[in-house]
Amino acid sequence: MRQLSGEDIEALAVGAWILGAGGGGSPYHGLLNLRRLYQEGAGVSLIGSDELADDDDIAVVSVMGAPLAILERMVDARLSARAVKAMEEHIGRSFRAVMAIEIGGSNGMQPLLAAAHLGIPVVDADAMGRAYPEAQMTSFAVAGLAPAPLTSVDPRGTEAIISRAASWKWMERASRKLCTEFGSIATTCKAPRTGAEVKQWAIQGTTSQAIRLGQAVQMARRAHQDPIEAILRAERGARLFAGKVTAVERRTTEGFLRGGITVQGLDADREKTIQLEFQNEWLAAWRDGIPLVSTPELICVIDSDSGEAIGTETIRYGQRVTVIALPSAPIFLTEAGLDHVGPRAFGYDFDFRSVFAA
Amino acid sequence: MRQLSGEDIEALAVGAWILGAGGGGSPYHGLLNLRRLYQEGAGVSLIGSDELADDDDIAVVSVMGAPLAILERMVDARLSARAVKAMEEHIGRSFRAVMAIEIGGSNGMQPLLAAAHLGIPVVDADAMGRAYPEAQMTSFAVAGLAPAPLTSVDPRGTEAIISRAASWKWMERASRKLCTEFGSIATTCKAPRTGAEVKQWAIQGTTSQAIRLGQAVQMARRAHQDPIEAILRAERGARLFAGKVTAVERRTTEGFLRGGITVQGLDADREKTIQLEFQNEWLAAWRDGIPLVSTPELICVIDSDSGEAIGTETIRYGQRVTVIALPSAPIFLTEAGLDHVGPRAFGYDFDFRSVFAA
Repeated sequence: MRQLSGEDIEALAVGAWILGAGGGGSPYHGLLNLRRLYQEGAGVSLIGSDELADDDDIAVVSVMGAPLAILERMVDARLSARAVKAMEEHIGRSFRAVMAIEIGGSNGMQPLLAAAHLGIPVVDADAMGRAYPEAQMTSFAVAGLAPAPLTSVDPRGTEAIISRAASWKWMERASRKLCTEFGSIATTCKAPRTGAEVKQWAIQGTTSQAIRLGQAVQMARRAHQDPIEAILRAERGARLFAGKVTAVERRTTEGFLRGGITVQGLDADREKTIQLEFQNEWLAAWRDGIPLVSTPELICVIDSDSGEAIGTETIRYGQRVTVIALPSAPIFLTEAGLDHVGPRAFGYDFDFRSVFAA
Repeated sequence: MRQLSGEDIEALAVGAWILGAGGGGSPYHGLLNLRRLYQEGAGVSLIGSDELADDDDIAVVSVMGAPLAILERMVDARLSARAVKAMEEHIGRSFRAVMAIEIGGSNGMQPLLAAAHLGIPVVDADAMGRAYPEAQMTSFAVAGLAPAPLTSVDPRGTEAIISRAASWKWMERASRKLCTEFGSIATTCKAPRTGAEVKQWAIQGTTSQAIRLGQAVQMARRAHQDPIEAILRAERGARLFAGKVTAVERRTTEGFLRGGITVQGLDADREKTIQLEFQNEWLAAWRDGIPLVSTPELICVIDSDSGEAIGTETIRYGQRVTVIALPSAPIFLTEAGLDHVGPRAFGYDFDFRSVFAA
């Protein structure tokens, strides 16, 4: 267990935003909330999965919804703690620690906010190693762990518990409808996990990973070096394309942000054009109709000038961007993993091919 | 307390269907289930509110959804009992009895099915005195009682609890979305009521009322008398219009059945035309654009030949129908009552005027 410093939190916000792969929502509001909590004397400690007892109960927190709604409606830091408390009331037990469902985007900060209010540590792990849009797109779902219960809270005072779910997809369907009705944003506590489940099935060390990634970018900026190069080195990523955004199509529908962009090549990529599509997160990119890269590998669109990650909710016409790919957590490259998060899981009619394959 | 006989149940199905005011879903499937349970030796007893202790816990059951979906997807009799059991697990107490949220339509039979499986009595009362489409359209809501919790179960195994609701309308919104996702039909246990609340705020004696109404119709049929006249006598109703259905517009949307019909007059009403609109239940009728009758009074469309009530999900072109009005429970005629179920509550821009006003 170690205490997270103010610098750690600043770096986490940078790293989590990159690992969001365009989604997860900007960590900025979460960072502001955490800065204030730290100024008020609160602290958050990070605990490794190996420090958990097998029968510890771990709360898995997240804000679900459309990134555009998350941007427009700030989430009170206490709401995540309320979702965890509602789960404790439902199961009749207390949690040893909280963890993120996804390290990417604002949900990489969310467990820290809950932990600061609850006075319990954050587990250095998540269930995606990035951000994904749907409930069944986790290592826990790939492992076949129980999808229920889930608590979902709205700031106006409505709270729901999905106490049983016929499958992960039914959990997704039922919880998404509530989220949509709450305004395409809901603060949730997902199915509690035991310490043993977290040790066996979570993606380990991802909070530390996001902090290291953020630090690498911060260092590059201070040294006036290329922050994109720093990302690629830290995460063993690949640079795919550089160009200018020439079209953006975006709609908030059914609790998601969906759409696509076109990027016209510049410099080495002049004369070429690529298309990207997203459902909260960037899902795939095509050049001349041929898939270039796809989920489960992380597609990140980075501002070519500032080196900042750009979310699917804020990307706009005219931005100069660099498209990069970062490797997926290994569990999603298995057959079961690809069933949950491969291109076909999003309705695309092509098989996954790694950009990192030799 | 009295044991309900097989004849009582047959009569209840007839009476509840009329009191459904076009909605609530046909009681026929519920009747078939109850007949079988009775043949297998089960029995249901009816208990008056005055026989309840003030601190008894009463389960309030209903199937919510669009009547067309209720017609197409039969509800397992055990599902209502499961919704009640889920509520007992949530609140940590056992129920003394069950009652109907609405006596109208299939929901007039639903508490009997739950009671037969649970081995507890049915309270001779409901919260509508008819059927209404939405959660806030009950005497309990008019009284300002708590809207939560609610349990909602789907036959495929997904179950949800709305544990808190900011208001009755939020309860309606959240529970309706789950219902829609479950296929526009969900078996629910509404907010539990105490014996004291049932005594003070329920609409009393409505199961007995529906049985008496059904018996009056059955007797008229056996004696080859006009069953519509029997309904009007039993309920002190008014005959409004007789004609032929010349247009039906109907759609299942957002968990409701919505639409309207046109009736071309016959006999004394020749040369006249009326329009009716519905949201599950018949809401209002107009002649030449002028409101003729509206909620909260019960609008019932009866087959002129057979004397059978016709639901909004089955009414069809060419049927010869008689439109009648039956009086509302007094609580819905108060200012607070009209706020919940008057024509303006359904978006109509006119004030309620009783057809029974002198």
